[in-house]
Amino acid sequence: MTTPLASPDVLEPEMIRRSVDEALAEFLTEKDSSVSQPHLPYLSGLVRDFLSGGKRVRPLLCVTGWQAVGGGENAGPVFRVAACLEMFHAFALIHDDVMDLSDTRRGRPTVHRALAAQHASCRGPDEVEWFGMSAAVLLGDLALTWSDELLHGAGLTPAQFEVVLPLVSRMRTEVMLGQYLDLHATGELTDDVEATLNVYRYKTAKYTIERPLHVGAAIAGADAGAMAAFTSYALPLGEAFQLRDDLLGVYGDPRVTGKSRLDDLRAGKNTTLTALALRAADARQEATLRRLVGDPSLDEEGASVVRGIFEAVRARETVEQMIDDRLRQALGALDDAPFTADAVGALKRIARTATTRDS
Amino acid sequence: MTTPLASPDVLEPEMIRRSVDEALAEFLTEKDSSVSQPHLPYLSGLVRDFLSGGKRVRPLLCVTGWQAVGGGENAGPVFRVAACLEMFHAFALIHDDVMDLSDTRRGRPTVHRALAAQHASCRGPDEVEWFGMSAAVLLGDLALTWSDELLHGAGLTPAQFEVVLPLVSRMRTEVMLGQYLDLHATGELTDDVEATLNVYRYKTAKYTIERPLHVGAAIAGADAGAMAAFTSYALPLGEAFQLRDDLLGVYGDPRVTGKSRLDDLRAGKNTTLTALALRAADARQEATLRRLVGDPSLDEEGASVVRGIFEAVRARETVEQMIDDRLRQALGALDDAPFTADAVGALKRIARTATTRDS
Repeated sequence: MTTPLASPDVLEPEMIRRSVDEALAEFLTEKDSSVSQPHLPYLSGLVRDFLSGGKRVRPLLCVTGWQAVGGGENAGPVFRVAACLEMFHAFALIHDDVMDLSDTRRGRPTVHRALAAQHASCRGPDEVEWFGMSAAVLLGDLALTWSDELLHGAGLTPAQFEVVLPLVSRMRTEVMLGQYLDLHATGELTDDVEATLNVYRYKTAKYTIERPLHVGAAIAGADAGAMAAFTSYALPLGEAFQLRDDLLGVYGDPRVTGKSRLDDLRAGKNTTLTALALRAADARQEATLRRLVGDPSLDEEGASVVRGIFEAVRARETVEQMIDDRLRQALGALDDAPFTADAVGALKRIARTATTRDS
Repeated sequence: MTTPLASPDVLEPEMIRRSVDEALAEFLTEKDSSVSQPHLPYLSGLVRDFLSGGKRVRPLLCVTGWQAVGGGENAGPVFRVAACLEMFHAFALIHDDVMDLSDTRRGRPTVHRALAAQHASCRGPDEVEWFGMSAAVLLGDLALTWSDELLHGAGLTPAQFEVVLPLVSRMRTEVMLGQYLDLHATGELTDDVEATLNVYRYKTAKYTIERPLHVGAAIAGADAGAMAAFTSYALPLGEAFQLRDDLLGVYGDPRVTGKSRLDDLRAGKNTTLTALALRAADARQEATLRRLVGDPSLDEEGASVVRGIFEAVRARETVEQMIDDRLRQALGALDDAPFTADAVGALKRIARTATTRDS
């Protein structure tokens, strides 16, 4: 693989993507030849396809965290660790889609749907669906195992490994606990705005923003002050990122987001948006929301009614305001951060993109 | 934890169990205090309960493999690696039970059933079941992550870690691929005896017997000859172990096995037993088998009919014969193996127990 210098170039998103993709491709090719098992190329091919659709947010942040505190001579290991984070994310999404019973991801059928469609020899539709779910759980398990192997094969020095490993372990447990919080909250709509934000902290702010920055920075030997500065940037930005995601889940253009904008509503997902709406709703609006949000057969018409209430009670507006506030906080945290000027520029761009994106 | 010497005592199964259980308990207690998240003690408690029912087959083999090639001064690391294998196995079983839609395990409700029962706030029975499945997938994910942390915290030297890690990685990929083979084969009954034995090689022989021995032996610095001897013992024994399991799944006493003896038949599981029966069946018997095996509503009466055919076509007898042959091969492999006399004795006992057990 190409071994770029720790120059400003290293922050070029396209370059990061390319280097991470090379690391992933190299790993999967080696994997195919390591175990002789007839289904392995098919399964690794599914992982490969799945990975090809990603935005590489975590790798981008990991490399940026590394460069922000001075990087180092050899960028190879940080790209391979970034690839490990992307493989871990593939695991998390594959299992999330099973748990959310989602049909599409990144504009394509979800893995459990694709696996079900491929399995035509089964008896009935229930069995086909069951096969898809089971095989997707298994494919996620493989991706989790492989993310671990990518970390071990990253070429970190023992000293680097010793600081990176506890961060990665913590990240894994945190996101799983966040997912549990989320699961646990599904099923009954809540007006507890703070509880929804708590899920975002675990599932998104820490997992998507803070830990990737920390992991990259740890490879470059960051001190406690730098780590704290990353946290001050990451936590508000992560919440803003997730708040944007919630809006996209309800208002986004499916052709751009690649996701149905009915899934979240049908699943009765507790978001800050729904919590704010419930809190501000009058009795009739509340009854309508409780009837429609979580109805698995909700159609576009019903969804329009829900969107109308979100706007009438200004829940949508409040979420936009919360995103703005958090974006400002995140940018403010960069003012005195002990980071390279190039990284500060990149982190500002990332913050703006993450909060104003349409996909 | 107690640090036993590499004496014959180290092969005492009760002692191995106690030391492994201590390592697991220590890890989970530390885990509870490491991340402040309200649901963590509940989730780690579920893992703890699940672990408490295990037979510790893999830890036993891991420690035996280590002692067989001379062990070492300090047995602490090998017990902690053995604990990692047990935690990995908890992950594998929790996910297997989700995929098999099993209701009981070790005489108690499976994890997804227990989680569903605990989640009373959901709306309908479908949602409760969905929550149980999803949370069980997540709990399995946590156990997989934690097994990794146990390995890293085992206190291996860098040289030991370097030989153990690739074995553990391989073991993980192998068992997942074996599970995929198994899933893929479910749904249509096969008379391909060799195909069923191939699944056993991946899912059981390598995973349950060979790799635990290899991992333990690698910690003690085993050479290639010793590794090959373990393989010659492990592969036939693993097949025999699984063949016994199949018989127990259909003929076992649920009060002793802790498993329903209808689950495998209802799921239409392809076993060597069913493949042999199909191959030997006449047209009428075959039609009956294809109608009953895989029928989710099969009752004891239907199961008796199936068992009757298994016996009439001598499939049960053939499986018993295959177990005997393989047991003989496994014991024969110990004759010239470069192992300590105590370990040879222990491996012989393990082989007999694994193939003649009633649970």
